[in-house]
Amino acid sequence: MKLKLIISALLFSALNVDADVVTSPNGIVSIDFQLKNGIPTYKVDYKGKPVIKESRLGLELRDGKNLMDGFEQLNATTSTFDETWQPVWGEVKEIRNHYNELLAELKQPSTDRYMNIRFRVYDDGVGFRYEFPQQKNLVYFVIKEEHSQFAMTGDHTAWWIPGDYDTQEYDYTESKLSEIRSLLSNAVTSNASQTVFSPTGVQTSLQMKTDEGLYINLHEAALVDYSCMHLNLDDKNLVFESWLTPDADGFKGRLQTPCHSPWRTVMVSDDACDILSSHLILNLNEPCKIEDTSWIKPVKYMGVWWEMIAGGKPWSYTNDIPSVKLGETDYRKVKSNGNHPANTRNVKKYIDFAAKHGFDQLLVEGWNVGWEDWFGNQKDYVFDFVTPYPDFDIEQLNRYAHDKGIRLMMHHETSGSSRNYERHLEQAYQLMNKYGYTAVKSGYVGNILPYGEHHYGQWMNNHYLYCVVEAAKHKIMVNAHEAVRPTGLCRTYPNLIGNESARGTEYQAFGGSKTFHTTVLPFTRLQGGPMDYTPGIFEMNISKLNPNNDSHVNATLANQLALYVTMYSPLQMAADLPENYERFMDAFQFIKDVPVDWDNSIYLEAEPGKYVTVARKEKGTNNWFIGSATGDANHQSVISLDFLEKGKDYIATIYADTKDTDYKSNPQSYQIVKGIVNSKNKLKINTVEAGGYAISLFEVTNSDEMKGLKKLSVSPIK
Amino acid sequence: MKLKLIISALLFSALNVDADVVTSPNGIVSIDFQLKNGIPTYKVDYKGKPVIKESRLGLELRDGKNLMDGFEQLNATTSTFDETWQPVWGEVKEIRNHYNELLAELKQPSTDRYMNIRFRVYDDGVGFRYEFPQQKNLVYFVIKEEHSQFAMTGDHTAWWIPGDYDTQEYDYTESKLSEIRSLLSNAVTSNASQTVFSPTGVQTSLQMKTDEGLYINLHEAALVDYSCMHLNLDDKNLVFESWLTPDADGFKGRLQTPCHSPWRTVMVSDDACDILSSHLILNLNEPCKIEDTSWIKPVKYMGVWWEMIAGGKPWSYTNDIPSVKLGETDYRKVKSNGNHPANTRNVKKYIDFAAKHGFDQLLVEGWNVGWEDWFGNQKDYVFDFVTPYPDFDIEQLNRYAHDKGIRLMMHHETSGSSRNYERHLEQAYQLMNKYGYTAVKSGYVGNILPYGEHHYGQWMNNHYLYCVVEAAKHKIMVNAHEAVRPTGLCRTYPNLIGNESARGTEYQAFGGSKTFHTTVLPFTRLQGGPMDYTPGIFEMNISKLNPNNDSHVNATLANQLALYVTMYSPLQMAADLPENYERFMDAFQFIKDVPVDWDNSIYLEAEPGKYVTVARKEKGTNNWFIGSATGDANHQSVISLDFLEKGKDYIATIYADTKDTDYKSNPQSYQIVKGIVNSKNKLKINTVEAGGYAISLFEVTNSDEMKGLKKLSVSPIK
Repeated sequence: MKLKLIISALLFSALNVDADVVTSPNGIVSIDFQLKNGIPTYKVDYKGKPVIKESRLGLELRDGKNLMDGFEQLNATTSTFDETWQPVWGEVKEIRNHYNELLAELKQPSTDRYMNIRFRVYDDGVGFRYEFPQQKNLVYFVIKEEHSQFAMTGDHTAWWIPGDYDTQEYDYTESKLSEIRSLLSNAVTSNASQTVFSPTGVQTSLQMKTDEGLYINLHEAALVDYSCMHLNLDDKNLVFESWLTPDADGFKGRLQTPCHSPWRTVMVSDDACDILSSHLILNLNEPCKIEDTSWIKPVKYMGVWWEMIAGGKPWSYTNDIPSVKLGETDYRKVKSNGNHPANTRNVKKYIDFAAKHGFDQLLVEGWNVGWEDWFGNQKDYVFDFVTPYPDFDIEQLNRYAHDKGIRLMMHHETSGSSRNYERHLEQAYQLMNKYGYTAVKSGYVGNILPYGEHHYGQWMNNHYLYCVVEAAKHKIMVNAHEAVRPTGLCRTYPNLIGNESARGTEYQAFGGSKTFHTTVLPFTRLQGGPMDYTPGIFEMNISKLNPNNDSHVNATLANQLALYVTMYSPLQMAADLPENYERFMDAFQFIKDVPVDWDNSIYLEAEPGKYVTVARKEKGTNNWFIGSATGDANHQSVISLDFLEKGKDYIATIYADTKDTDYKSNPQSYQIVKGIVNSKNKLKINTVEAGGYAISLFEVTNSDEMKGLKKLSVSPIK
Repeated sequence: MKLKLIISALLFSALNVDADVVTSPNGIVSIDFQLKNGIPTYKVDYKGKPVIKESRLGLELRDGKNLMDGFEQLNATTSTFDETWQPVWGEVKEIRNHYNELLAELKQPSTDRYMNIRFRVYDDGVGFRYEFPQQKNLVYFVIKEEHSQFAMTGDHTAWWIPGDYDTQEYDYTESKLSEIRSLLSNAVTSNASQTVFSPTGVQTSLQMKTDEGLYINLHEAALVDYSCMHLNLDDKNLVFESWLTPDADGFKGRLQTPCHSPWRTVMVSDDACDILSSHLILNLNEPCKIEDTSWIKPVKYMGVWWEMIAGGKPWSYTNDIPSVKLGETDYRKVKSNGNHPANTRNVKKYIDFAAKHGFDQLLVEGWNVGWEDWFGNQKDYVFDFVTPYPDFDIEQLNRYAHDKGIRLMMHHETSGSSRNYERHLEQAYQLMNKYGYTAVKSGYVGNILPYGEHHYGQWMNNHYLYCVVEAAKHKIMVNAHEAVRPTGLCRTYPNLIGNESARGTEYQAFGGSKTFHTTVLPFTRLQGGPMDYTPGIFEMNISKLNPNNDSHVNATLANQLALYVTMYSPLQMAADLPENYERFMDAFQFIKDVPVDWDNSIYLEAEPGKYVTVARKEKGTNNWFIGSATGDANHQSVISLDFLEKGKDYIATIYADTKDTDYKSNPQSYQIVKGIVNSKNKLKINTVEAGGYAISLFEVTNSDEMKGLKKLSVSPIK
């Protein structure tokens, strides 16, 4: 169904400005666009109450002819759109994209320039973007700053990380908006590349909660050929304003008409679960551009990785050289450090374990020459992405893995040297094709080359997408770390199966993350697309892996299992070492059982910083999996299993904290309870700070399966 | 012969500082290196008189630990080197590389860092460079500025162009050094991309002449992975100092030990011809790195080019679109402007003419999509280098050309968008291979992308060389315009057959160049390698090609012929239109006859700004060609033909100015005199400002050839 109403300018001039109010399909959300003295403004309401107060829109340009004011409205066109589409992979099988739209066509008579603002109003929020039609007086232009305002209605609580042009790997701070300024400097922890730009700058997606219990989320969608948007708070007036990432010349966007900005999004609901189950960001992205997607498959994987991250072992092959010059350094003439995990023997051990337990792939980092001095030098020719270390038999290992039914996962660390990566990209992808790799984890640690560019500027955003598009030509899936935060582009390019772009599990080995971290991420980072969070750490005491590292993983073992369900991703790692899994094989069973693709997802309860509980139905089966992650306080989770198919029995296996579990002192305390449930069951489960539970629910297809199992009570956990 | 003397530090400490004096093989040139209070200094003498007075050497680093002073000398090693090598193409068949060397090994105890300075002393000048050995405390480092001084002995006359990070396309100014400051702003004429950095900054190669008649030239050799050096004049003390090109962060070099700077060169002689015949720059470059060079062949070519440059015709196909988005703009749906020379019919006309007259190749510009808005927008995706316009039948035209024994020459204008070019490079070279192109003219018009980078910074220097190296893999010869000025790299990569990097003939259609221009270029721009100067303009009145252009080519027709000999290049264009050549077929005969590769070259007379006369022996024959270009005053050229083989007769054809020739009012007045000469002949020929003469000397192998020809008198020209 597609309805388009063209309302002429003449008609509009006779109407009150209220004519530009558009409501969502169910009428709950509305936007009110007004030109006030030539200045574009908008408001957002939810259930008749303001969410965004009157806020300005516009852009400042290098040529001084700003697109900020002096506008006339030529046309306002409203339309409605309703379609249902199928993602290649996702939390649900089908996604409804249903919105009402307002296209406000503006003219700036003093410059004879034209700009449109398009609003899409959904039941769970709003998206708007600037559109620059093809025109005589605006062909190429340079953005000095975008001034999109988001005027808050009060001093909301926010879960925020510092605004930064180069990293998102910060712990979240929960505070009132008015407290951001005083808390920001403490919130900035050190990173390999970081550029904080303002004492009140924060990143998107930004999750807030009003005193009245309204959940508001600000982010962007479809970030293509544009600079990434941060938010800067005017903390006197509680108005956020867009703050784009600059290029090496200090400008913030190079555009050519016809073109448009990404969507600026405002999600809103009085139920936190609505924020988590929203598909607004995906819906605002373009449909899939890859014709044949049969080769794109979700991946559960292990890695030769935690040994280095937590175990302190080196990516590098040798300690004998002070620095590497690729093409000149002869690795056959230097001694191995003897401690380098990416060697053929050790990788085979991982292949054996991963294959035995049904994993799809095994990531191997440190396989290629150059790691001796890869970091911190803004080195141009830092890796070639094709030459293995002498002790990594790439041909043999891939054959060995394939014989056991799994694949190796490629690793391309770029050290931020983007030109060098692009120079080798085609050969690197060809090498992957040659040996049967289907997925690559890429990385951008350190300051960017070209010099003066940032991780989140237009130049690099163009680069990240270039790599994804080129990868698709080779049927390669991409999981880019330290790249720009995702904005739903995985709808358009579903071979982008993951990103890091936040503080991942590795920080649990770098001093630890806050206990509420994984109950915030689903509200913030995950809005734009899946995160390669790399959960599944069973040994919380990092000093057991590395005596020189006294980090503690701030999570319970049950929490680590829950994350496979709460942190939606088509790419899930079991990040710990095989020997740590072997100590807890009963718990490891959940990681083996949990799928990475889903037909449906139902958020059962959620509160940022406190808890997230979600039930997901495995793709193509009748089995369900529940994950519940607990934040910074103990929690009693009460859920109903009424989503199960009526009249069917399910074997539930619950992996949960015990009453003795403590994320600091006793994180490995968990209990496993198995029993029969159906759709009438309710469950009440107590969890601890940084704890949680995971449940597998296998449909009973043969009553023999139930032998010896009892019906579960409402409080199955002791 | 290779002799190495190692003199221990102990021995040195007992010696006077004079121990570090090294003289050239014939004793005429000497350098004197001294550490003075820990500061490296040097002097250069010629025939016992100072050329470079005591000058400091050193580098300022980002980390503040400058390599400027506080040095101790560990070792001074002298050696001598003498070898003869054969260039793949060149002015001569064999080049002798004969020098004495001093390697001064320095230590900075306060930082425990090591730096060496290596001097090579030739009979015609000196080269020195900084070397940074592999060491513990200097691995990666960033140069803030190089401070290599060249202290002049007086207020010399100089032929200079303004120092600029982005262009060398300036007319030369002849002035005293002390006058540079007052003349510089007038010397800066507008360019598509330009960044002047100092009121006394000039470019290399810089040619000077002392009041005593000594010719001094400052330049650099082997510019690889380093920023291009300009010279800034302290005009109170007449001391030049190196001034490197900055990157986007304002730094001037990113280095990794072991490494070295390019060579800084000082050429000196009391005979101007020695400066022109010097091979010092080539000798300071590395030997050829291309194993099979059989595919590298000098090229004489014509072009579908002057129609656009002078004739005002468009590179673009259509006027119907305001801007191009490659991949979106559909050229089949727009109307041709009907005036676009790179169309199949017109190109065939050129192929016919060029093939008929024995040319090797035909350049076609404007063949590929994107020219409608290629310029001035720092547009990222500006060309794809593979998609022809609808009216350019690439397959048919290449076949048509090959059937007639010539090849098309590819054109890759990048608009300075270097990332985009690299992204398409492999496909573009593959397209060339597919259709049989063997040479590409590339261009870098406009400001550079990545933003903040300059044409002559390390980033782009790396790019230019990358393109040359990648081209060699495809057996492609490169002629890069608007790239960094050459520094002899064509020795190492002889597929770099040309560069522009100076004010070429095109400026004769952009208002005209100074009349002495082509008598300065051989002293300056050509020191580093051949220039694609594109001579051969027969119609000086540009308004005859384009009524809207009143430019005048400031040259006589005879001068245009002379340039094929005086402006050495293995790549020579006949730049004018076929119809203009058809009007002067007797003169055009010289362009047809003149070769583009040589066994020998003898500079007969030269004075910067005044005249350059050179005789060259054709590769593999006994034929000689003489060119004489006149500068800003009439000249009587008196030359002896004693270089001809004794006892042999030669048919000489002289193409010369007449007494009525005037470059402004009567440039097409020329005379052709033919007769017999031998090695005993002397010739006296009068030329006019911006005039000259050309002579072909074909060895008589059959006396019938001499029928009807007389012996030439000493003054054959009326």
